[in-house]
Amino acid sequence: MIHHDSPIPVDVSFLPTAIDPSRLTGAVAIVIDVLRASTTIVHALAHGARAVIPVLEVEEAMQCAAQFERNERLLGGERQGELIPGFDLDNSPLKYSGDVVRDKTVIFTTTNGTRALLSAALADLILVGAMVNCHAVAKAAYEARKPIQILCAGTEGKISAEDVFTAGAIVAGLQQVASGHFEFGDAAILARDGYLHRSQEPNTLVAAFCESRGGRNLLELGFIHDIERSAMSDLFSVVP
Amino acid sequence: MIHHDSPIPVDVSFLPTAIDPSRLTGAVAIVIDVLRASTTIVHALAHGARAVIPVLEVEEAMQCAAQFERNERLLGGERQGELIPGFDLDNSPLKYSGDVVRDKTVIFTTTNGTRALLSAALADLILVGAMVNCHAVAKAAYEARKPIQILCAGTEGKISAEDVFTAGAIVAGLQQVASGHFEFGDAAILARDGYLHRSQEPNTLVAAFCESRGGRNLLELGFIHDIERSAMSDLFSVVP
Repeated sequence: MIHHDSPIPVDVSFLPTAIDPSRLTGAVAIVIDVLRASTTIVHALAHGARAVIPVLEVEEAMQCAAQFERNERLLGGERQGELIPGFDLDNSPLKYSGDVVRDKTVIFTTTNGTRALLSAALADLILVGAMVNCHAVAKAAYEARKPIQILCAGTEGKISAEDVFTAGAIVAGLQQVASGHFEFGDAAILARDGYLHRSQEPNTLVAAFCESRGGRNLLELGFIHDIERSAMSDLFSVVP
Repeated sequence: MIHHDSPIPVDVSFLPTAIDPSRLTGAVAIVIDVLRASTTIVHALAHGARAVIPVLEVEEAMQCAAQFERNERLLGGERQGELIPGFDLDNSPLKYSGDVVRDKTVIFTTTNGTRALLSAALADLILVGAMVNCHAVAKAAYEARKPIQILCAGTEGKISAEDVFTAGAIVAGLQQVASGHFEFGDAAILARDGYLHRSQEPNTLVAAFCESRGGRNLLELGFIHDIERSAMSDLFSVVP
């Protein structure tokens, strides 16, 4: 817990492996895999899913699913961006509509996102951050009154610009929520400045997502609508 | 060597340790420690120094100096930002004027910059990048027609925003030199966007340098004029 008057440290890790684990202890972690795991998780919960359970492996997801009644759970996620055989849903946020997910528990596994979530396990509180909930997640993190570590999932172990731009949107959101209450690290400043540069006109954030590592992969698979949806700010106030 | 028509890959490492060494083989490395080692090296050579020899340790610098006539060499560099006992010059670029350095060999050791230079040893060609030579270094790197790896020195193993902004200036410079000839990695895009955000008005780059990790250290030591000088674009066309 931070003393009332001292500034709250905020930093960004451009990859989950870049963080010193000791910095997670006592901190709030915000985990971002904006294309698409964190965007999809926010959609599921905003549309009435009972819970989302992230797991690393497909096999683990199957075992977890067996503990629920068939009509109470959904298996969701992706491998190489596509639906996993035997699963109910892929990793497209647009598929997680109210008529599909309401009152269901979603068991969820993706390549980069669930791995990043599990790498944050040492944190006191783990939040899921996306563009679609960026102000809500900034507000929730501030209200926890603890150091804030924003973790970008990256793509296959490499820095992915779309996650860093989203981290920057959350840093900008923190400044709006409580300007002057934070002490931003250099990586947080870089992420914020990159985001501010790209968010000055509508659609430039969509363009930025399309040219990023994660976006190029999705464009090849034909998921342009998912990119457009994932780049929208503040559709939801849900903070998983 | 890159085929004439294929785009030249360009990427940025936010820390010297972040690069896979195999990516240096056959590449041009641009090493940046803008506050202040790379800025100082450019000043020394632009003002007529015969050569700058980077070495890791103070002891090594002394041994190297012993191989020169007293009036043909200068010992320069810093520890904790300050003059090293027995050295001729600290790490302030403003000290490396023509009347001091002309026709001298400068043996040079700093905390982060010389380490970053040595970490690039596997590259085919190593260039020293700073704001004061950012377009010249972009042009020289392009003319080598090899993959370009820009390495930020950081400060004590941590990402330092001033080096990343300078990397972004060089990426923007590459786009000016030969737009469309490059394939920029995500880290290069992030660095460029951060730089473009901060360079829209005069003096905002100085402000960005002052609030960065390296800048805060220098401000505490009273080196504001060094920061101002280091943030100036294109004073020199020298590419060490």
